[in-house]
Amino acid sequence: MFDEPCMDVAHLGHVELLTPTPDASLAFFTATMGMTEAGRHGGSVLLRGWDDYERCSLILTASHTSGLGHAAFRVRSPQALARRVAALEREGAGIGWVDGLGHGPGYRFHDPDGHVLEIYYETERYVAPEALRPALKNQAQRYPARGCNVRRLDHFNCLAVDVRANREFFQRALGFRLTEHIVLDSGEEAGMWLTATNKSYDFAYTKEAHGIPGRFHHVTFALDSREDILRAADVFLEAGVPIETGPHKHAVQQTFFLYVYEPGGNRVEVANAGARLILAPDHQPVTWTETERKKGQAWGLKTVESFHTHGTPPLPPPPDGGAVAGQDDLAEKGIAS
Amino acid sequence: MFDEPCMDVAHLGHVELLTPTPDASLAFFTATMGMTEAGRHGGSVLLRGWDDYERCSLILTASHTSGLGHAAFRVRSPQALARRVAALEREGAGIGWVDGLGHGPGYRFHDPDGHVLEIYYETERYVAPEALRPALKNQAQRYPARGCNVRRLDHFNCLAVDVRANREFFQRALGFRLTEHIVLDSGEEAGMWLTATNKSYDFAYTKEAHGIPGRFHHVTFALDSREDILRAADVFLEAGVPIETGPHKHAVQQTFFLYVYEPGGNRVEVANAGARLILAPDHQPVTWTETERKKGQAWGLKTVESFHTHGTPPLPPPPDGGAVAGQDDLAEKGIAS
Amino acid sequence: MFDEPCMDVAHLGHVELLTPTPDASLAFFTATMGMTEAGRHGGSVLLRGWDDYERCSLILTASHTSGLGHAAFRVRSPQALARRVAALEREGAGIGWVDGLGHGPGYRFHDPDGHVLEIYYETERYVAPEALRPALKNQAQRYPARGCNVRRLDHFNCLAVDVRANREFFQRALGFRLTEHIVLDSGEEAGMWLTATNKSYDFAYTKEAHGIPGRFHHVTFALDSREDILRAADVFLEAGVPIETGPHKHAVQQTFFLYVYEPGGNRVEVANAGARLILAPDHQPVTWTETERKKGQAWGLKTVESFHTHGTPPLPPPPDGGAVAGQDDLAEKGIAS
Amino acid sequence: MFDEPCMDVAHLGHVELLTPTPDASLAFFTATMGMTEAGRHGGSVLLRGWDDYERCSLILTASHTSGLGHAAFRVRSPQALARRVAALEREGAGIGWVDGLGHGPGYRFHDPDGHVLEIYYETERYVAPEALRPALKNQAQRYPARGCNVRRLDHFNCLAVDVRANREFFQRALGFRLTEHIVLDSGEEAGMWLTATNKSYDFAYTKEAHGIPGRFHHVTFALDSREDILRAADVFLEAGVPIETGPHKHAVQQTFFLYVYEPGGNRVEVANAGARLILAPDHQPVTWTETERKKGQAWGLKTVESFHTHGTPPLPPPPDGGAVAGQDDLAEKGIAS
Repeated sequence: MFDEPCMDVAHLGHVELLTPTPDASLAFFTATMGMTEAGRHGGSVLLRGWDDYERCSLILTASHTSGLGHAAFRVRSPQALARRVAALEREGAGIGWVDGLGHGPGYRFHDPDGHVLEIYYETERYVAPEALRPALKNQAQRYPARGCNVRRLDHFNCLAVDVRANREFFQRALGFRLTEHIVLDSGEEAGMWLTATNKSYDFAYTKEAHGIPGRFHHVTFALDSREDILRAADVFLEAGVPIETGPHKHAVQQTFFLYVYEPGGNRVEVANAGARLILAPDHQPVTWTETERKKGQAWGLKTVESFHTHGTPPLPPPPDGGAVAGQDDLAEKGIAS
Repeated sequence: MFDEPCMDVAHLGHVELLTPTPDASLAFFTATMGMTEAGRHGGSVLLRGWDDYERCSLILTASHTSGLGHAAFRVRSPQALARRVAALEREGAGIGWVDGLGHGPGYRFHDPDGHVLEIYYETERYVAPEALRPALKNQAQRYPARGCNVRRLDHFNCLAVDVRANREFFQRALGFRLTEHIVLDSGEEAGMWLTATNKSYDFAYTKEAHGIPGRFHHVTFALDSREDILRAADVFLEAGVPIETGPHKHAVQQTFFLYVYEPGGNRVEVANAGARLILAPDHQPVTWTETERKKGQAWGLKTVESFHTHGTPPLPPPPDGGAVAGQDDLAEKGIAS
Repeated sequence: MFDEPCMDVAHLGHVELLTPTPDASLAFFTATMGMTEAGRHGGSVLLRGWDDYERCSLILTASHTSGLGHAAFRVRSPQALARRVAALEREGAGIGWVDGLGHGPGYRFHDPDGHVLEIYYETERYVAPEALRPALKNQAQRYPARGCNVRRLDHFNCLAVDVRANREFFQRALGFRLTEHIVLDSGEEAGMWLTATNKSYDFAYTKEAHGIPGRFHHVTFALDSREDILRAADVFLEAGVPIETGPHKHAVQQTFFLYVYEPGGNRVEVANAGARLILAPDHQPVTWTETERKKGQAWGLKTVESFHTHGTPPLPPPPDGGAVAGQDDLAEKGIAS
Repeated sequence: MFDEPCMDVAHLGHVELLTPTPDASLAFFTATMGMTEAGRHGGSVLLRGWDDYERCSLILTASHTSGLGHAAFRVRSPQALARRVAALEREGAGIGWVDGLGHGPGYRFHDPDGHVLEIYYETERYVAPEALRPALKNQAQRYPARGCNVRRLDHFNCLAVDVRANREFFQRALGFRLTEHIVLDSGEEAGMWLTATNKSYDFAYTKEAHGIPGRFHHVTFALDSREDILRAADVFLEAGVPIETGPHKHAVQQTFFLYVYEPGGNRVEVANAGARLILAPDHQPVTWTETERKKGQAWGLKTVESFHTHGTPPLPPPPDGGAVAGQDDLAEKGIAS
């Protein structure tokens, strides 16, 4: 689609989560996850990990339900912003310009599944107040030594009714590169992982099982090491946070993962970005087959049913009053679906 | 220098080390470091870490002395290669085209200090033989479970008589970005760290104390975690490999480091790239002052004298027959200088 | 049973495993587990971890089937040996004296379930050959830097038809102390963990589901850290070793576990003994109820069915030719039951 | 000295530190070290790590100076207490019975160097208040997820003018076992490490360089892993706590260490007890020579001068008004000596 690799998008900037329980969600992200509040605006609280260089990487917004508010990418230059806005307008995907929260003007757009996304260039760098000033000047903020000690935002994952259409949109309009995907025997794409950086992915989309657009799967924060993920499992256990699955290692992308639910119902992952980098400018995407995925995760753990079925906002009640697949698993773990 | 960030260089590809003890050096890199041989050509052996996607990341070449043969960067596209060759020719730095070892045609050039460098686009992807085929298809090679288990090449460090001139050359001709540097009270630059990727540096140049051009400081390989660096220290101890300093954490770049000497006399580092990424496309370089650097490393370890003085190839004997600074330290550790 | 704590047993010394595939089992323990051969006698090979101070901690014996040969404890003194032999004879449990393999005279006895056990005092300290001599004189053997790098034998686990009777036997005759146990709603004991040291357990017995005496559940080797267990999972994955479950953290004893099958069919665990110590001389046993155990492991992982049903030697085929519970799970993972 | 190993002492129970800055010291131990207050009595605050089973493992007592108040060992039984008191009285070392703080009646005594020590049997088990109740019933207290997350008291280290006399006293009167010691070329003992448990040491005495009796070197708390020690270094750096040396690995005992100074001037170590256990009931002490110790620590770090000279309480000013060896090093690190 491009003569040369398009490098216009620099990185994932922040994710806005909607929560029907804003106070409990805020307590979860600050006390248990170890993130830092960096401002408030209306019903939104800005939050950050200690290594995020911008003012915030998570915006928590009070709402009647859960799910994704929006996700935003920072582009590499003003010129890159102009090029990408033009491309999004050609796609007919544009929503328009907004004042950014924690950054300068942002251009909002829809992906084919209806999620709201944003690109921006001008941003606010975090300036730590005295009490949070780090000992080393090449660090954004003092290491908190509290809860899970979230280092930085890593990626997010949306559900999509048509995974392939969404992948092609992001590759075509924004120049993201595909690193891995799952292709079912039917030829349908069940999952795709895209990157704008040397990270192996900046976001992923997986198959929505119920045909409902615009749903959210999870947001992921990077901790420092696999040992930190194990420790986070202890922290979640002690804090009474429902653990869905993990710690274990994904076969896809080899991420060392741990999934929990924040009080508002959104799935949250802590993961170890580790030393894994995609350095090849012409990386050949890895295609996983249906048979390969049935083997479970890297060390043999079976993927829990709820992982394929649960997203936010919750599904509307089925017309027949029956149960939603995976709900029993979650109910057993104290997770409202 | 560029209207927009120049993304033409994709990543560091490989480093060629010269060694006067090729057999012992090869044994060090395979048995102790846990690297894998991936071919031979003339007096050179190609070596790789288990996560390097190209055929090799280290070329070990028999020579009468030690030091850097050359270092090579892969560029992002054929067009990028043409642009950078043109820029190097404008600088008058070009040496000319060579047949690559482990990759396609490479263009060689000199930096202002006289080191030989190379850029190339076409490459050979590593295809693991049956015995080294990994269990997961998104991995280049089976995890060796041997020695230090080098994951991939991380960076290299040269000595330069004029650090600033070399930095400006790499920024101007190749579009590298400065992330951190040391500026002495005199205004002289004593060290600089440049990146082409989201890693915080792909190579560094530090001040040559004796005014001799073209010398080499060290090559660094990434292990997975800080725990792996500690384990590597045990492995080196057991194998009788001279440890110069570490494990400890650098203040500059916060790298968790361990420096040893391979049998040929070259300094080798194992480090933990960790989760640290430079995501900002407009990262503001961190400047360290002379006073700040005198504080030692992050947790207070004083920098060993030999670190400022020892490089390869060795210095010519002083005309007065006296000792070279730092040699006593090294002699005590069993390191020939 | 004792006026004062009985300290006569010093520690678990070694475990003898029977294997119908001696060559493959030996290759597993040396190449994949990273243990060292320390002698042969008849059909037995003596093996050891790098931190075991005695000559061996595992004896691998060729046999027509799998299971436990015997397990042996070293006592604290010659006087302690005499006292314990007298007590075992009073119990009517004695088998008699044998020449030890890797140690001096041993006294063999049966537990109520029919497993063969042994106590001894005189032993052979390991003396490393030149090539395996450690750098530090307070270490038994050079760190191997190979495979899983087993540090030392940690514990073993037998199945027993009557767990309580076996527990009381070991407490009464040998002075072991109970640290944790599982008591079902029926009052039946389903599992018990006993210690002679400051480790939280030196062996465990769990309920045999089929009423067949003398069966073996697993032997466990200690690695250094939780990170080493995660790495071991990668090593097993790469080597094609069937992983049954883990890595995860047990609720009981909080052991960080990983269970695999060696080629002879015996279950083997690698675990992290970590910093957990039972220091209280009057430790109050922790009793887990049936309800508590149904919650799964510490972070919520459900206990796999095969863990409750699979032991060695394999069960005789059911008279009706039907399947044995848990066999399907194992077959799927490539484990012959 | 004993016909059979004497097992009367069960473990180190607690250490009382004197501090001239009680508020700052308390803040250090709770906020930075992550310990929990468990009561107050007079000028003393009782503190504990999350895995200590007794009410407290550290007593912080306001005083005009720094140093050791006393150290206390729990014995294995009432009978053991009677035997050891009798032995101490035979030695003429007894001070007499005291009401214990956090435990039952304690018998105090002097070692030959004049330090105050105590033995006791009856104790108070910690009962966590609701807010600190752990998720797993086999754990004393909720994991704090704060600061360095001290797990438990590990050992203490005193200075002694005559190391050998003190070692022989503890072996003779209390049955401690010697695991390692340093013997100088002159035959003088410069350091000794004794244990009552399966830990490789419960306390150590090293040579007092100035001939002043009753001084204290450091108290050590166990964290979970080497990674936790590295993280603690970051926590200390961020909190402005003076780091004396480390993290690094001792050759003696192979402890992974990090030494800092608490605000009252006492040296505090965090260390990783790891999987290292002394299981042999007849462990042969390891003797380190002067030459071996001059090699520095395990990976080559030179022992800092202040480690040989600094203890608490501080030395009286030299009569000639000159400097005390090692003071310059400490002053540079912001440590008042």
